[in-house]
Formats: sequence, structure tokens, C-alpha cells
Amino acid sequence: MKKTRILMALTTLLCLPLVAQDEAPKDDWKPATSNQPGKEYPKVNSEGRVMFRIVAPNAKTVGCTFRDSSEFKKGEDGAWYGHTRPLDEGFHYYMLNIDGAEVPDPNSRMYFGAMRWGSAVEVPAHDQEFYELKNVPHGQLREIYFHSPSTDSMRRAFVYTPPGYDADPEMRYPVLYLQHGWGENEYGWGEQGYAGFIMDNLIAEKEARPFIIVMTYGMTNEIRFGGLRNFNIEPFETVLVRELVPFIDKHFRTLSDQPNRAMAGLSMGAMETRMITLRNLDTFSHIGLFSGGSIRPDDIEDLATFKDRNKLVFVSYGSKEVGGDRPRRGGNPEESVEALKKEGINSHYYVSPDTAHEWQSWRRSLHEMAPLLFKE
Amino acid sequence: MKKTRILMALTTLLCLPLVAQDEAPKDDWKPATSNQPGKEYPKVNSEGRVMFRIVAPNAKTVGCTFRDSSEFKKGEDGAWYGHTRPLDEGFHYYMLNIDGAEVPDPNSRMYFGAMRWGSAVEVPAHDQEFYELKNVPHGQLREIYFHSPSTDSMRRAFVYTPPGYDADPEMRYPVLYLQHGWGENEYGWGEQGYAGFIMDNLIAEKEARPFIIVMTYGMTNEIRFGGLRNFNIEPFETVLVRELVPFIDKHFRTLSDQPNRAMAGLSMGAMETRMITLRNLDTFSHIGLFSGGSIRPDDIEDLATFKDRNKLVFVSYGSKEVGGDRPRRGGNPEESVEALKKEGINSHYYVSPDTAHEWQSWRRSLHEMAPLLFKE
Repeated sequence: MKKTRILMALTTLLCLPLVAQDEAPKDDWKPATSNQPGKEYPKVNSEGRVMFRIVAPNAKTVGCTFRDSSEFKKGEDGAWYGHTRPLDEGFHYYMLNIDGAEVPDPNSRMYFGAMRWGSAVEVPAHDQEFYELKNVPHGQLREIYFHSPSTDSMRRAFVYTPPGYDADPEMRYPVLYLQHGWGENEYGWGEQGYAGFIMDNLIAEKEARPFIIVMTYGMTNEIRFGGLRNFNIEPFETVLVRELVPFIDKHFRTLSDQPNRAMAGLSMGAMETRMITLRNLDTFSHIGLFSGGSIRPDDIEDLATFKDRNKLVFVSYGSKEVGGDRPRRGGNPEESVEALKKEGINSHYYVSPDTAHEWQSWRRSLHEMAPLLFKE
Repeated sequence: MKKTRILMALTTLLCLPLVAQDEAPKDDWKPATSNQPGKEYPKVNSEGRVMFRIVAPNAKTVGCTFRDSSEFKKGEDGAWYGHTRPLDEGFHYYMLNIDGAEVPDPNSRMYFGAMRWGSAVEVPAHDQEFYELKNVPHGQLREIYFHSPSTDSMRRAFVYTPPGYDADPEMRYPVLYLQHGWGENEYGWGEQGYAGFIMDNLIAEKEARPFIIVMTYGMTNEIRFGGLRNFNIEPFETVLVRELVPFIDKHFRTLSDQPNRAMAGLSMGAMETRMITLRNLDTFSHIGLFSGGSIRPDDIEDLATFKDRNKLVFVSYGSKEVGGDRPRRGGNPEESVEALKKEGINSHYYVSPDTAHEWQSWRRSLHEMAPLLFKE
């Protein structure tokens, strides 16, 4: 891990000057891995710029939602072309704009974010190897439905079962409940988050213990921007803790005691994780907060009980989220983690290099946290 | 079943004149169930017309890919509106056109068809109850990866396991291999095909025996329109029969003998099914061809062996595919089925009322065929 981080830092130092000196985009474009099958565009170059191509013969203006993009111009083939500024490594949502209509790029695969199925582009990351599809034993991502009396609905969840789950009917596994962010849904961790491949690769390398991951929709009540301050956790807490947890324990071979149950989430999902785990110390022993606050000793009502029950508090951010001395609600996360450590709580702080409030930070966070979960 | 068919026929007779007399669309629009979460448009009315709304302030022309649609016009809110002719019940792919750019409708969920993730709309069907999400025990739709030496790739499949699969580690199940059509992929049957809900509902009503369904990508070699006549089945046959079948038999609790293995497919998938099953009588006992040809006695090399090994030949079409006396390659499917019956082969012919070469025909075909599979 340490070697990787040094390499990451070096790569960044070497790459930055190149991009700054070069005004014209480097001509080493390659089709993005997030493209629809057989589509050449969008293309990404080694600076992390993305080039789009869209056939819109009668359009007056074409653009994309990435700020500071080039002007889109008609090429010799009659199609429109435009490119972005150098983007961070990893995954970015976007939409095209054709004469004022914001639409998905027909060349991109579709992902759910910002409350809609739309486009996104994958900028290759120097460390992408950890979430690549490899010829190793694979777990399964299972789409399941469970009945929720509190919301009077059938609800969907995805359940990752580790490789070998079906081979031994006596074997039982710990469970991580893993939440998406605001405007995303239960597909996020399995699709753009690559949770399955991350776990398959870690397990193949014997770096993490095999466990089950459960992902469901976390926006049970109507949450809109600005409303998070007065957010009522109870509807989702009921679905997750009183309905889904018992369903999973009934239908999967779980280790169903508190030491073998974790919850983590990103952004709004971290906020939900923080609220739910602090209110349910008897249910969850491991806590993961990715880009969504931290826990200070004085947030904890009964510190003695917490110290007794909790096995891990993992807090992470993208480096671009915590840079500078911007004040943040809940205080400095690194200081919170240090304060927990001083209280004797097994607490970890991770910063994803050169990434912001985006999926590359969260893929790396899962990859860093998973080996720390359910240690015996 | 018979009652349903009479009702379907009656409904059609009653509905047709209404639509024909009425020039202005009936004003009973409701949001389509295929919409993105929270989206009001596209809307569908009781005639089966679909109304679109797209914000495109600077566009000169807006349209959709449904032929005979109304001209799209700007409404008082500045958005563009247009509607289709009355469409058949069921599921239809489409795209929007904005100043010549063919793009997905940002209001629709995304489905894979015509070689791309794009838009589709669900026109409510009078018999949609059979594929609705109900509070019954649900199976699981599992995303799996298997290694394919012949194509040197990791390949995806979806596996439907019936309700209760995980409850009894001694229980083994028959398997249906189920193929999508040209330009579609392995997501088709699970998403727009509702294969899981169809089976969950049939099993809850004890109308079908619980079995496993395996769905993988069938366009292993490059298949393009016009190339189907010289289509080489071998690459896909190798992946399916020599690689996937053994993988499934190893990793799932299958009944792995020939009497407990079926193959079916729609359109190009039916063509593949026909070629593969006729060449592998020792592997598959049940054959389902949906909208993609039939089998005549003189297509079968060794009729005696076929009669001995085969348990079912199920052939189906949408009524709008087989209406009139259009000649079709492979001859009249109903006559083929009758000829098989005369040879003593358990053969069934089903026509989906008032549907064409589309998913409603294929949902109904699976619903009709499933109760006939793996009878003891």
C-alpha cells in the first residue's frame, strides 16, 4: 500500500507540469472504457481530457456539462467535436447539451447519478488495476426484492456474495451494508463503484476476508438539497435495520451477530451511516464514512459503551475535499480520527490522492477499508 | 389460459373502433412505468399513444423515431411536445431527434436494444399482471462472470435462481438457457423481458416448476443485418455448450442431465437455439423458438433419435408477424408444429394476440412455455 501511495504522489508531480505547459490537447486519444459497445467516442487522452463527438447536423450550439470545456465545433465529417479540461482520474457524470436540450450522450453507457440515468466517462487511473475484471474467482452480484411494511412496498437491493459462497453450505459470512450518495441509487456501488471487482481482487490476493455486501436505496424519504440539515433518518433506519437486516439474515448465510455487521456509505450515505450506527451500537460494530463527516468523541453519547462495542471507525476523503483550511461541519476529520484513537478506538483516516468528491475516492476508500473489516 | 385468450381477443375488437374514430388523442395521459424515477413524461393514454416532452429551447426541430408521430411543437412552457400513433401493448424502443441528433430521451430509463443503451416506453398491457412485481417469494437475478478460453475473455451471464434456492442445499434444479435477439444483450430478458417476475409469479401460483434460467450474450462473432444467412454458429455454440454449461453445472445446483436442460430464444436467439439444439440433442431436451423460425420433420437429420431425446418443441410468434399469407423462410410455423405433432413429438404453437416482433410477444411466450418445461 505504502509503495502505491509513493508512486501515486510521484506520478502526480511528473504529470502536472506537462499539462500546464501544453495548450493544445495531446493527440493520444483512446476510447473511454465507459463507452457503449463499439463506440469510438468519447475518447480520453493522457492528460485526462475527454473528447466528445456528436452527430447533430442542424444544431446551432453543442456543449457538455464539464466546466471550462472547449467550444464544440463541426468537424469535416459534419459531426460536432469538443473536449474538456484535464479531469481527475476516475469516473465523472456528464450530459450533452444540444441547442439547449440537456440529454445523455448516445455514445456513453448510462449510470444513475444526480437523480437520473445519464452519461459518465471513465478517465483511466494509474491504480485502476485494483478494480479491473480479472480471471480470478468471482463473487455474484444478486438483485433481490424484499417486502417493506413501513413503506408498504417491495424494495430492491443488490447483494454481493463472495467467491465460493455456494460451494460450502455450512460457511457463514460477515455483512457490510454499503450506501450510495445523494441522487444515486442501489446500482451505484455495483456499477460505477466496482464493489464486486474490488472485493474479488482483494479476496484473490488474500488481502481481505470474504464477506457479503448489501446495497439498497437510501433515499427512503424525500431528500432534496438544503433539506439534509433537518434530515429525518427514521424512515431509512426502519427499512435498513428493522426490515432489510432481518431479511438478509434469514435468506443469506450470514454471521448475524453485531461483531460481524458493518455499515459504510459515501457522502449522504456516510451521513446516514453515522446516524444509524450511533443509534444502533448493538447492530453494527464497524463504521465507514467516505466523504461524509467523521465522529468525534463528544458526538458519542456513551463513550464507554461505544468503546466496548465498536471495532472500527474508518474515515476517508478525496484529497481535493480536505485541502486548504476550509472549515467543515463536524470539524477536521483527521483531528476527529486522532481524538478517537486517543480514546482507544480503532480508528483509521485515509485520503485518496488527487481526487475530489467523486467515485475514484470512494472506490479507493472501499479498497482501503475492506482489509480492516471483520478481523478476528 | 383459454379464458385469457378469449378476453384478449374481445378487448381488441372493442378497442379498435374507438381508436379509429377518434382523431384527437384521448386526454387520459398517465406517466409511463418505463420513465426515470419522478418523471412525468413520457405519458401514455388509453389508446396506446405516447406523449413526449423535451426541453430544447433553441432547437429548430424535435421528433422521435416512432413513424407517423405528430409534429412536435413548443408548448406554453417552452418545452417541445409530440405524440405517437396508437402503439401495440407492451415495450417499444425509441430515440428522440433534436436538430438531427438522435439521442436518448432523458426522461426514459435506458434499455439495450438496436446495439445501444437507449430509450424505451412501456404501453400498459391488459395482461401485464403476469409480469408485475408482487409481494410473493422472489428469486434472485445474479450477475456472474465466467472465463471463456475460446474467446480469451471473461464473459458475463445473468442467472435467475428460483425462490427458495438458498433454503435447501440438497435441492437441484433444471436449467433453461434463454437468449436475447439481434442487437440486444444479456440484460434483455431480466430487464425488459421481466423473466424473473414472470417466473416468480408462475411459481407462486404453482403453474410452473421452479427452474434456473441462464442468460448470456449471444453475439459472440460479429453479426450484422444481412449476414445472418451465412451465420456461423460455432463460436457461440462453443461458449454456450462447451464453456458456460459446464460452468453453470459446476457452480449451481443443477440437474445436469439432458432431460433437465432446455434452450429457448427470441428472433436471432431462436435461430441460435434451433441450430444449437439440433446439433446437441444430447445436451438439450426442450426447445423454445420465439419469433424466429420453426422446426419441420425434414429439418431433422435423425428423426428417430430426435423423437427419443426431445421432450418439447415450443414455437411462438406475435399475431402481427404471422398474419396474412406472407411467405416466410422455414415455412409456415403452425404447419411445422402440426407436422411435428403427427410424428409424435410434443410440440406447441402459440400466437401472442395483437403484438408484433417485440417484447410483449416474448414475455407472453416465456409465460406460455414455462409451465410446459421439465414436466415429470
